Amino acid sequence: MSDKQVLKMGLPKGSLQEATLAKMAKAGFHIHVSSRSYVPYVDDEHLMVRLIRSQEISRYVELGYLDCGITGHDWVVENGSDVREVGEFIFSKATAQPARWVLAVPEASPIKSVKDLEGRRIATEVVNITRRYLGKHGVNAGVEFSWGATEVKAHELVDAIVEITETGSSLRAHNLRIVDTLLTSTPRLIVNHNSWKDPWKRDKIETLALLLRGAIEAESKVGLKMNIQQKNLDEILRSLPALRNPTISNLSQPGWVAVETVIDEKVVRELIPQLKAAGAEGIIEYPLNKVVY
Amino acid sequence: MSDKQVLKMGLPKGSLQEATLAKMAKAGFHIHVSSRSYVPYVDDEHLMVRLIRSQEISRYVELGYLDCGITGHDWVVENGSDVREVGEFIFSKATAQPARWVLAVPEASPIKSVKDLEGRRIATEVVNITRRYLGKHGVNAGVEFSWGATEVKAHELVDAIVEITETGSSLRAHNLRIVDTLLTSTPRLIVNHNSWKDPWKRDKIETLALLLRGAIEAESKVGLKMNIQQKNLDEILRSLPALRNPTISNLSQPGWVAVETVIDEKVVRELIPQLKAAGAEGIIEYPLNKVVY
Amino acid sequence: MSDKQVLKMGLPKGSLQEATLAKMAKAGFHIHVSSRSYVPYVDDEHLMVRLIRSQEISRYVELGYLDCGITGHDWVVENGSDVREVGEFIFSKATAQPARWVLAVPEASPIKSVKDLEGRRIATEVVNITRRYLGKHGVNAGVEFSWGATEVKAHELVDAIVEITETGSSLRAHNLRIVDTLLTSTPRLIVNHNSWKDPWKRDKIETLALLLRGAIEAESKVGLKMNIQQKNLDEILRSLPALRNPTISNLSQPGWVAVETVIDEKVVRELIPQLKAAGAEGIIEYPLNKVVY
Amino acid sequence: MSDKQVLKMGLPKGSLQEATLAKMAKAGFHIHVSSRSYVPYVDDEHLMVRLIRSQEISRYVELGYLDCGITGHDWVVENGSDVREVGEFIFSKATAQPARWVLAVPEASPIKSVKDLEGRRIATEVVNITRRYLGKHGVNAGVEFSWGATEVKAHELVDAIVEITETGSSLRAHNLRIVDTLLTSTPRLIVNHNSWKDPWKRDKIETLALLLRGAIEAESKVGLKMNIQQKNLDEILRSLPALRNPTISNLSQPGWVAVETVIDEKVVRELIPQLKAAGAEGIIEYPLNKVVY
Amino acid sequence: MSDKQVLKMGLPKGSLQEATLAKMAKAGFHIHVSSRSYVPYVDDEHLMVRLIRSQEISRYVELGYLDCGITGHDWVVENGSDVREVGEFIFSKATAQPARWVLAVPEASPIKSVKDLEGRRIATEVVNITRRYLGKHGVNAGVEFSWGATEVKAHELVDAIVEITETGSSLRAHNLRIVDTLLTSTPRLIVNHNSWKDPWKRDKIETLALLLRGAIEAESKVGLKMNIQQKNLDEILRSLPALRNPTISNLSQPGWVAVETVIDEKVVRELIPQLKAAGAEGIIEYPLNKVVY
Amino acid sequence: MSDKQVLKMGLPKGSLQEATLAKMAKAGFHIHVSSRSYVPYVDDEHLMVRLIRSQEISRYVELGYLDCGITGHDWVVENGSDVREVGEFIFSKATAQPARWVLAVPEASPIKSVKDLEGRRIATEVVNITRRYLGKHGVNAGVEFSWGATEVKAHELVDAIVEITETGSSLRAHNLRIVDTLLTSTPRLIVNHNSWKDPWKRDKIETLALLLRGAIEAESKVGLKMNIQQKNLDEILRSLPALRNPTISNLSQPGWVAVETVIDEKVVRELIPQLKAAGAEGIIEYPLNKVVY
Repeated sequence: MSDKQVLKMGLPKGSLQEATLAKMAKAGFHIHVSSRSYVPYVDDEHLMVRLIRSQEISRYVELGYLDCGITGHDWVVENGSDVREVGEFIFSKATAQPARWVLAVPEASPIKSVKDLEGRRIATEVVNITRRYLGKHGVNAGVEFSWGATEVKAHELVDAIVEITETGSSLRAHNLRIVDTLLTSTPRLIVNHNSWKDPWKRDKIETLALLLRGAIEAESKVGLKMNIQQKNLDEILRSLPALRNPTISNLSQPGWVAVETVIDEKVVRELIPQLKAAGAEGIIEYPLNKVVY
Repeated sequence: MSDKQVLKMGLPKGSLQEATLAKMAKAGFHIHVSSRSYVPYVDDEHLMVRLIRSQEISRYVELGYLDCGITGHDWVVENGSDVREVGEFIFSKATAQPARWVLAVPEASPIKSVKDLEGRRIATEVVNITRRYLGKHGVNAGVEFSWGATEVKAHELVDAIVEITETGSSLRAHNLRIVDTLLTSTPRLIVNHNSWKDPWKRDKIETLALLLRGAIEAESKVGLKMNIQQKNLDEILRSLPALRNPTISNLSQPGWVAVETVIDEKVVRELIPQLKAAGAEGIIEYPLNKVVY
Repeated sequence: MSDKQVLKMGLPKGSLQEATLAKMAKAGFHIHVSSRSYVPYVDDEHLMVRLIRSQEISRYVELGYLDCGITGHDWVVENGSDVREVGEFIFSKATAQPARWVLAVPEASPIKSVKDLEGRRIATEVVNITRRYLGKHGVNAGVEFSWGATEVKAHELVDAIVEITETGSSLRAHNLRIVDTLLTSTPRLIVNHNSWKDPWKRDKIETLALLLRGAIEAESKVGLKMNIQQKNLDEILRSLPALRNPTISNLSQPGWVAVETVIDEKVVRELIPQLKAAGAEGIIEYPLNKVVY
Repeated sequence: MSDKQVLKMGLPKGSLQEATLAKMAKAGFHIHVSSRSYVPYVDDEHLMVRLIRSQEISRYVELGYLDCGITGHDWVVENGSDVREVGEFIFSKATAQPARWVLAVPEASPIKSVKDLEGRRIATEVVNITRRYLGKHGVNAGVEFSWGATEVKAHELVDAIVEITETGSSLRAHNLRIVDTLLTSTPRLIVNHNSWKDPWKRDKIETLALLLRGAIEAESKVGLKMNIQQKNLDEILRSLPALRNPTISNLSQPGWVAVETVIDEKVVRELIPQLKAAGAEGIIEYPLNKVVY
Repeated sequence: MSDKQVLKMGLPKGSLQEATLAKMAKAGFHIHVSSRSYVPYVDDEHLMVRLIRSQEISRYVELGYLDCGITGHDWVVENGSDVREVGEFIFSKATAQPARWVLAVPEASPIKSVKDLEGRRIATEVVNITRRYLGKHGVNAGVEFSWGATEVKAHELVDAIVEITETGSSLRAHNLRIVDTLLTSTPRLIVNHNSWKDPWKRDKIETLALLLRGAIEAESKVGLKMNIQQKNLDEILRSLPALRNPTISNLSQPGWVAVETVIDEKVVRELIPQLKAAGAEGIIEYPLNKVVY
Repeated sequence: MSDKQVLKMGLPKGSLQEATLAKMAKAGFHIHVSSRSYVPYVDDEHLMVRLIRSQEISRYVELGYLDCGITGHDWVVENGSDVREVGEFIFSKATAQPARWVLAVPEASPIKSVKDLEGRRIATEVVNITRRYLGKHGVNAGVEFSWGATEVKAHELVDAIVEITETGSSLRAHNLRIVDTLLTSTPRLIVNHNSWKDPWKRDKIETLALLLRGAIEAESKVGLKMNIQQKNLDEILRSLPALRNPTISNLSQPGWVAVETVIDEKVVRELIPQLKAAGAEGIIEYPLNKVVY
């Protein structure tokens, strides 16, 4: 590794910025954004970070101004950017479902399917995705670029909108009905094709992906540790497949072993009562920073 | 377990709400309260949660509208509710002593004991507890229901108050003197008698209680881990009883064992210096999410 | 240990107060500052805490009104206090470099070195440190006590200032140039000489220092745990010196051992990819509360 | 007026407290509530203020512990207090309609009128108002005291609720339908009958009421001032009755008069264009603190 | 005026929303935006308000979906919208200069004038304004649409940007240099041509403009009132032209007149000392809500 | 007035900064403090403002680095600065009494008067004022400079303190008893003697003082306006001396005059009822920005 080598990475400025920087910190890369400089500080001299709107990152990665970036899959598609997607990350714990771009109309609208859009006008921030969707269904309709606050327009200014949603609650609050889903999207680590061919850069990017994945994985996982009698061990492991692949270490106390594993936090509430019933003792659950299998 | 089965649980709305939902989350049940729905979302399809004033939960559990609930022991008593108390939980780390309902009077009041209340007027939110207390002491006194801000009334509007306190600091700030304690109260998991007879519900409730206890337990505990020479082990374990029941595992390095245990966080500051003095090495303390013995 | 014995400790009031109390809590001593009392509550009956300006703590420790205190090395020097410094603590993770008292002048000032100060006027909060510095260089200059906001004065009211800085950003924002560094300073645990001779007090202070050091150490460390094949162990340990002195415990699964160690958080991002490449499995990183070697 | 005379006034503690103290300040009585004393400071030595729950003020005014108080008409009725209502004040500018206690049921409930409540259970904070309402309609139904958060209960725990509302938005958000209105309520200045007979107290109360009314009046009024040609004056005053009873003063400039009046702020947007069209010049609108006709 | 007639008005959603609604309120139209409805409430049944991005308002006004709107002149130009501009409003008191779209490059860039852009790439939110500007100067350059955070791109991703600025401080903080100004912009009241032909709508719009202008005017004006001796009046009015066109009314006190006028707040600090020196007495300055000449 | 002439003014940085800048703005001088520059912006090219600790302003005014400044009288005395005090301003409406430097001791201290301080140790921020006070009373005692948080020291570290207080509440909260008052202090406009001799500077300073006084005066005053019958006028003016020196203007309505005056806001609550009783009509009270007699 040469001291001179630097990886240029684009991170999303704006609504996803805080969450993304938090993930990067958990992965081990601490980024400090100062109001006095347009260049964020990174505690890794081989990494340069630029904060750019999520909508544009794929464009600059494709052109090679950036080696890689984190952005939504939707904007890669919208921009038609020819980039490599290395990793997919589920950032949000709050919602079960990823972001979706949906076709929505007012509750009382006669529009029931994409076919009913013929000759209508649609407002959206993703003009290309929408046009491709209409084309695929053989529908002719006007597509207008919307600068935002798109829901408001659906009632009076256009006939339908294509808008992003996670839980649908904002659409419901605006009395809008979802007609169809055009695209689901999650954050991705995208890479310029030439950068991927450079061994040092590829190695750096794979390390980044590995650590990010480890940090995100750890958010929904916990460590579980308990003591089990040797004679019950096989039975317990067989009946509780969630305890997959535990680390079993010998204890000085004859006849007992320590069992330790990493499991989904949401499985714990099922597992602990079962373990206790099966004779496990001294069960403790502890938090994790990173999990790399 | 039938997919249809659901446990209805009442949780306290208001000042205890945030703390209670945090404990439930630590226990593994994530509850989301939306301003757009009166029905909180729980990430367990077998659990339904309703947020109700702490004062009223025992009433609706008794009537069977709710299967169980978390509420203060005081309101179970005040309402005279016939419910089963399954668990007791100390929620607050800040204060050593639990909430107490006390009889208080102005500093300069001639009232020195309950006997001096004869013929006087008392304001309180717990009318029944107060009446029962007076009756037990054979005292006749008027008891008025107070909607709150009761301390202010003690100086001019009534002769005494029965009010809740933890540290007594609010009473002192109002220049009030505590005459007697009527009741101490902690949060309880209460259950309707019929629900308790239903095996599925009882099992669900016991699981809830187990996990809540594990999560609350973990708040005042930490994990402690160290390496000790085999030859010193017995001496250390004998002289440091706080290290009760540790997990001892063999190390590859001959003559050394790894000792791991869970102890009260407040004991650590005594224990670590003693362990170090006794030859322990590589002592680390780590946080815990749950502890189930 | 007599029940009567109490250690009197001064902690810095003001800008460092919150951080200092947080460290004390991590060390196991929970201090509660009430707006209703000038005496902070400590959950240790053998410890009394007083909150005093950082500038004055060494004075009262020297006089014996306090047994010990946490304060900056700079103020020990400025006050010329004859106290024992027991421990040095790096409190801040944000900045790599400790606080420095520097001589600064406007960017355009002709002053290039301490020699150019001859006959000039200097404003500073550390009058004694500044005078000693000038004396050492044989420079005669007026030194005025500054109550604060010293940067503003450097442009019009005096010729130079001696001011504290960590990153230099405030100086740069005021268009000031650093000419020289007079003193670097970190927080210290200082002790009165007589208190140090008292065995009980000395023991108490050494415990405090041990626990504080353990808590501060843990902030930049994490626990790392993984499974490794026995046959690869030596090679891995040799090639990865960062894994210094790990705990190796036997697993039931033949041929595998569990390796556990404590390392600097900032090394993790290098180490995990290497470990993975070397065949380690089930790598987890977890947070620590205290680390005592 | 004797220096010893003091009027004791109850003001509502809690949600209405801030608004009420603001009105009192506008009326000229500045009240300072300290966290260190249960006795608020008033800058009038002849006025003593106590902060008490709105629900209870009428009770203590009736008993004579307080001479007067500001509280909602609803709680005077609920308590059945025999007090004199001296003034009615519309406090809120935000909502056009006063607070109403309404009978509400789930949207899908079969209950369409009070008659349908026969044999049902109702939860409410105003038990007496509700019982009287049922009695008036000859309906037998259970009425339970609710400690709050009443909307949540309407769906599962009781059949109907009687709850307070201004805009109905909270009820709608809980999917509740208003069946009937039991009582509308506004803040009142209430007085003890004996205090009213005391000339000094009555005078003091009437002054208070006058100033409060003047301050509240001023919130929805503005001053309007303009120059008008003498010859157009009669025509303008006749055609614009909103300009009721203006002050007309002579100007030095012959043929012109200055016209000044106080009008509702919401009329201004109609009036100014008309005035301008009618030849008025130099129209200015200015804010008012008090208006007393 | 028919009760049925309604004017549809677009107001800017987002950064200018709060300021715009505040101006509308000062003009006498109180608009309430609820999180529960996409339709803002206006206390005028003849006015309907829609909140739409500033960038799009002119488009929908031109199409006739809205009768009028408040938006920046820049977006009218960018969209090439054929609408009528009825009024210009200076909203901000903070900055003396209106918003400008400027061509900016890094401090060290070789680009010194628009001519140097030949063959370069420019990022901007106003693609059309930028293309027209380049065309006017006969320069061929690529213009890319920027979604925002444009300053960051100027250093590495493009050669120049066209960005909005008021004080230039954000550009300076990004080390960018202004090369040229393309357009200055202020908020405008724009109207659809057909709506302007409708007498009722035109009248309504003119009233709106009149009141908005009166409210904005009043922000930088104050009322000034004083007593002056009749004999000095002419001399004072001649020497102090800022006292333009005052209202002079007779006082009962012989030889004195009351002089009242509306002046720029920033002139007061010059005028009051001069008035006092000239013998004016009882000078008072008072705030204004609206000023309509 | 020369365009080149500039007045240099020091304003207090820190706790009084916001209040002082607000007064300056009311006086007509708007000052903007930016985090990006140490030089505050003033909208008057003849005024330069520097923000300096209140403790030091008099020093730099005396030396001539500043022409004038606003600072407390106490620090003028403490520094022994030879400056001219041009104006005194009561800034705070909240407290009736000005700031006082008092000698305070623990409640239980045997110290009852200054004489009891003989041979004791005193901590204070105003070392010179304290020494002079002791000298005046012929008392020998040690005086130590305190950096702040002085109250805490009075119990254990020194025998007495000299500390600033307005209401005494902080002293009471620390269980301290006031023994004597050394100095009362209000904010002053102070001027360098040479600057005062410069006619342009003196004129500028007098204007500043006039406008500041006018703005501060207006905070506790209101305008009052009413219509009165001519025949009652003399009687009303005689019986209500608070209506001092009103402006009386003729109305067109025969027999009535308009009476207008400026009075203390705290008199209004007495005056309005009396005016109404005396037949005044259409009484309005309005706010003022400045009052210059």
